[in-house]
Amino acid sequence: MATGGFLSRFLQLGRGRFGKGAPRAALLTVRVLSRAASRSQLHGTERSRVLTGKEDRFGGVTVDLSETGLAQDVSESEFSEILRESVARWKAERRAAVWLRVPIALSRCAAAASCHGFTFHHAKHDHAVLSLWLGDGRSRLPAFATHQVGVAGAVVDESTGKVLVVQDRNKTKNAWKFPGGLSDPGENIGATAVREVLEETGVRSEFRSLLSIRQQHQHPNAFGMSDMYIICRLSPLTYDIHFCTQECVRCEWLDLAELAQTHSTTPITSRVARLLLRGLESGFGHIDLGMEELPAVYSGTVYQLYYRQLPPPLRP
Amino acid sequence: MATGGFLSRFLQLGRGRFGKGAPRAALLTVRVLSRAASRSQLHGTERSRVLTGKEDRFGGVTVDLSETGLAQDVSESEFSEILRESVARWKAERRAAVWLRVPIALSRCAAAASCHGFTFHHAKHDHAVLSLWLGDGRSRLPAFATHQVGVAGAVVDESTGKVLVVQDRNKTKNAWKFPGGLSDPGENIGATAVREVLEETGVRSEFRSLLSIRQQHQHPNAFGMSDMYIICRLSPLTYDIHFCTQECVRCEWLDLAELAQTHSTTPITSRVARLLLRGLESGFGHIDLGMEELPAVYSGTVYQLYYRQLPPPLRP
Repeated sequence: MATGGFLSRFLQLGRGRFGKGAPRAALLTVRVLSRAASRSQLHGTERSRVLTGKEDRFGGVTVDLSETGLAQDVSESEFSEILRESVARWKAERRAAVWLRVPIALSRCAAAASCHGFTFHHAKHDHAVLSLWLGDGRSRLPAFATHQVGVAGAVVDESTGKVLVVQDRNKTKNAWKFPGGLSDPGENIGATAVREVLEETGVRSEFRSLLSIRQQHQHPNAFGMSDMYIICRLSPLTYDIHFCTQECVRCEWLDLAELAQTHSTTPITSRVARLLLRGLESGFGHIDLGMEELPAVYSGTVYQLYYRQLPPPLRP
Repeated sequence: MATGGFLSRFLQLGRGRFGKGAPRAALLTVRVLSRAASRSQLHGTERSRVLTGKEDRFGGVTVDLSETGLAQDVSESEFSEILRESVARWKAERRAAVWLRVPIALSRCAAAASCHGFTFHHAKHDHAVLSLWLGDGRSRLPAFATHQVGVAGAVVDESTGKVLVVQDRNKTKNAWKFPGGLSDPGENIGATAVREVLEETGVRSEFRSLLSIRQQHQHPNAFGMSDMYIICRLSPLTYDIHFCTQECVRCEWLDLAELAQTHSTTPITSRVARLLLRGLESGFGHIDLGMEELPAVYSGTVYQLYYRQLPPPLRP
């Protein structure tokens, strides 16, 4: 399953050390420990502070700096010293990895952490998460989200054989394409298609199926990340066009046969037009990846599965 | 197209202000400007430093703190003052947004920036990117990557009607499923399937097609982000099983008809097994989303498009 790689790669380290039980209870304090030996002999009586955090079953530990009781004005050098001793302890305890959650107001701690080998794993709104791999070999920590998802909607009017197409304002070539745009975080594929079609063309529609998927890495507008671009088939609920003049220069209901043949389009649009033409001719069941909603086993939420739904009796 | 939403939503602001031309030349210095008026009357002769950065055609400005000539030991309060005056200037210039690229060693600047309304947009390895929306209404800045991509491989031995399945070690239920795991950044879907199958089972295989796609939000192992889980059809190149005992408790070549009927499997695996059974019976052309590689128009790279490839003469 999707998380198999993360869990398994990480587990190769963790299992055997913490077993498969639930995470241990969290100890979320900056513990003040009296120190006896070597350094106190150098610097007189000294006390050492060590960060502790939530242990996970993969052999890692997560420290949330907003829950450690750390002073809001802790200096970089002070935090660096705390972290130095903490890392030494985690290494002695043979931890696989350390995750450091840093509230934006304590960002100076990230600079200090970088001196100890931590790097940014990701950041969201009001906090950053840094990680440090302590296990053997190269890091087996899972990456953060790698893809943005863009969705376009091919709104097919089956009564006329026409499809709704636009020409982008900010492109060098006047190519017909299906209206679409980026999914908002947490938004379903079909919902993005319906929303973008409405925003760009003024046409209301409903989701039918998924038709094609493109994967492209280092996408120019994805902050160096990858892009997944999905085209959906939609059915129109309204037909009047009121297109967004800031986004499009043209918007029309175009004959599918014409779209399948014109050179004034993109390679993807052209292929999907041919698919849709076949659907019009012999039924969309031949080209559709239908959607089924199923309950997620662990999270209690619902997920959407897109696949070729078979006619009875083989249909599940 | 995928970026339509980002560009267009952003463009609604930017266009008309900067037009559609190329970005202006970058001015990447901390400009030292003499100040005359109000505050100098309060604080005597004073000099003000203002950040300048690269302007984009959407009305935004990007400042890379590693290129501004900022002192490496700039204090939070000092940077805060520079930023205060810079933001005032950007507002006066009616900028739509500001992007701040902060090297990890200068992380204290992120804390200072948060006091002026900046938040983390994302962070990667050695730097964080913060953003501040200055336009009207809610922010129309595009989100960072929202999805991780997991891929499983259904390796079908057409000569026997069997498929390669595993039982995960760390699951509560002994369910048969297809081996798989998370895509590494920049890795193609098919490559992930082939790699994960090899790592988990020891079986070498090659990519054939894409079969199903699941979208799930707030996925437990996706750091609160969304998950796209894709199942591919693969053909075996080797048949001997040497499965990874740290990941799996069982690994077998199982009869597809048996997998399609057993209750010891997941809902997705069961549905895909039925699809594959249909493929075995009447040809995989009925269930496959084939892959075609096409050149990207702008980036000069290649992308992968997955869709139902039609038989001639309709095939493009």
